[in-house]
Amino acid sequence: MAAGLFITFEGGEGAGKSTQVRLLAERLRAHGTDVVITREPGGTPFAEQVRALILSPSVAEHTALSEALLFYAARADHIGKIIRPAMAAGRAVLCDRFSDSTRVYQSIAGGLDRKVFDALEQLVVADAKPELTIILDLDPSVGLARAEARRIDAASGEGNGERNVDSDGAGRDRYERQALAFHEKLRAGFLAIAAEEPDRCVVINANRDASQVAAEVWSVVDQHLQRRAG
Amino acid sequence: MAAGLFITFEGGEGAGKSTQVRLLAERLRAHGTDVVITREPGGTPFAEQVRALILSPSVAEHTALSEALLFYAARADHIGKIIRPAMAAGRAVLCDRFSDSTRVYQSIAGGLDRKVFDALEQLVVADAKPELTIILDLDPSVGLARAEARRIDAASGEGNGERNVDSDGAGRDRYERQALAFHEKLRAGFLAIAAEEPDRCVVINANRDASQVAAEVWSVVDQHLQRRAG
Repeated sequence: MAAGLFITFEGGEGAGKSTQVRLLAERLRAHGTDVVITREPGGTPFAEQVRALILSPSVAEHTALSEALLFYAARADHIGKIIRPAMAAGRAVLCDRFSDSTRVYQSIAGGLDRKVFDALEQLVVADAKPELTIILDLDPSVGLARAEARRIDAASGEGNGERNVDSDGAGRDRYERQALAFHEKLRAGFLAIAAEEPDRCVVINANRDASQVAAEVWSVVDQHLQRRAG
Repeated sequence: MAAGLFITFEGGEGAGKSTQVRLLAERLRAHGTDVVITREPGGTPFAEQVRALILSPSVAEHTALSEALLFYAARADHIGKIIRPAMAAGRAVLCDRFSDSTRVYQSIAGGLDRKVFDALEQLVVADAKPELTIILDLDPSVGLARAEARRIDAASGEGNGERNVDSDGAGRDRYERQALAFHEKLRAGFLAIAAEEPDRCVVINANRDASQVAAEVWSVVDQHLQRRAG
């Protein structure tokens, strides 16, 4: 993964990942960078079909291993069709969630053996790893309240309604319906990854206005690009 | 996988796998054996949901790797909920297709690296391997004609119509729609596995009446059980 720039955004529900992806894309484009915005699970027609199954409240009960395998089925397609070609063309790829989410949701919080996660990561992702990961950190009770507000907006026609395909009668997907304790584990999981890989991961306090968060994201990306160029 | 008996049936489309599974189950039950009949992809509610996605003619284009990962997502659930518990209870599990089908369809005919297949097999199946695999061998042109006849029966209400959920307007699932050359590769693939693992695999000529095939299947299983007991 020599050329291009691959940045992922991670964090819990309602942390503002998709907003920050969009704001960073605007800023990079203003600097003349060719940007691809994408997300996981999803990003290709096949991966979006897998996403619909994973997030559906009517999906049958299954283990963290089965769930991780579904995520990697979608991820393999996404890497092959979107991420690798964009990188090879020297473009910047900004991705809303990636492998760290699988590690946190299915392994750290979900109980999947770390060795199994690592083996899947090696089989599917190999060298298609992000060079920079922004972890948007937020108290889960704040994040879930934000996600709730987004649902109300979507229901009243003010939001983009994008998540509704995967949601239950109350507009919540399978993960949003989990108890607060689960979301606390997710937060701790993302922070643990950041501590383990400080060269790749930067934790940003997401409990602020989107514009303040975006300014810090830009500062981190700008420093990264300068370090990379130098 | 000490207790119980795990037998898989493999082979191309129209080779008579589900019929032979049923006939062997009848025979084992007549001998007082507690039998579980199952199939792949499928066998559990979650795995059947994954099956519906895999076999749907409207599934978006994807690689053999993504497809293998979907199969193993379903297989992990099937092994955990059906195969291991049945084996632990000392029951006989008869399964219509298993890992050999993934190896043949996605790896030998589909191009997935053998090492990747082996790694997934080790991660998901581990020791839950069949002790006996019956490979029903048949000229693909004969098998596809049989599958076609089955579709006509199903359409006229005489068949069980079970495959229709996953089928196109003509009643064919994604694999049945592949060209004859693909099915020739599948046949050669199953025979290659049999040659590689002669202790586990027995090839039976399926181009005969179901009752003749069933008699040979029984002979093979009976010998296996005697060898096992002795």
